[in-house]
Amino acid sequence: MESYTILPASQFLFCPLNPNRTRSTITFNPLKQRISHPTSVQCQKMYVPGYGDASQEKKAAQQLHDFFTYIAVKIVNAQLQSYNREAYAELMQFLEQHSLNDGDKFCADLMRESSRHRSLALRILEVRSAYCKRDFEWDNLKRLASKMMDEHNTKVMRDYVSETHVMTESEK
Amino acid sequence: MESYTILPASQFLFCPLNPNRTRSTITFNPLKQRISHPTSVQCQKMYVPGYGDASQEKKAAQQLHDFFTYIAVKIVNAQLQSYNREAYAELMQFLEQHSLNDGDKFCADLMRESSRHRSLALRILEVRSAYCKRDFEWDNLKRLASKMMDEHNTKVMRDYVSETHVMTESEK
Repeated sequence: MESYTILPASQFLFCPLNPNRTRSTITFNPLKQRISHPTSVQCQKMYVPGYGDASQEKKAAQQLHDFFTYIAVKIVNAQLQSYNREAYAELMQFLEQHSLNDGDKFCADLMRESSRHRSLALRILEVRSAYCKRDFEWDNLKRLASKMMDEHNTKVMRDYVSETHVMTESEK
Repeated sequence: MESYTILPASQFLFCPLNPNRTRSTITFNPLKQRISHPTSVQCQKMYVPGYGDASQEKKAAQQLHDFFTYIAVKIVNAQLQSYNREAYAELMQFLEQHSLNDGDKFCADLMRESSRHRSLALRILEVRSAYCKRDFEWDNLKRLASKMMDEHNTKVMRDYVSETHVMTESEK
């Protein structure tokens, strides 16, 4: 059977710090009248290549930014449906003609459509900010993402094992 | 000038709780030997329609799940590049032929390609889980998303104001 030797995750750590500075011990210097305790700096993060200046967290924040605009449009649309049918119809019509993939572009285009649409755009900007800062449950997101990771990893492996088991059984 | 009346955000709150249960006061009952203090439950979340059973946090977690698979592939690829050129070439070739948009499908397909690819798939599953649970900075994501929201909202409005200012100037 052909196979690679795949090393465990712990052997692939990346630390941009100067190795000479890790586990450094700063001794007491009476002249400076400062007492320093031994400090230990350890970086155990995996190296992610090719992102230039943008961190992975910033990339994820960008994805969520467009998602929040999408949510804000849904919220405003539901509000208009109950108290301003005219504005609701206009927003629905605008949605049919413009993509929500780029949230900022959608708001900018809506702002330039007419003075009525401008009020709607300002409302969407206000709602997406309030939703991001107040309503969205960040701790729940972290919990769900970890849980989803475990479930999906198990499913991918279980499906493969089931499939190969069926194939082995049919070969008997 | 034609315009709608857009109500402030505070007037569009949604609370699925029974209103009779809010601000309930449970008085002291000597028979039960329990002391209860007045409790106040208030829900001030905006109503987001049309998601069925999936919460917004779950939808966002799904987006990040595919993002973590993408990151894991980048990490494993960078590791292979330095110690196993053969596996690196095979993973690069597989990447050219398969989309990473659906992370689970990518891993499932990789697992079924050959026994060598299966080792790589298992490694990607391991890395994406470790990255999600250990390396990814969740607090930083929340901070960056809020900051990005303020910056982008300001930019959308500033661009519009600049544009209309230029148009007004040129009309003079």
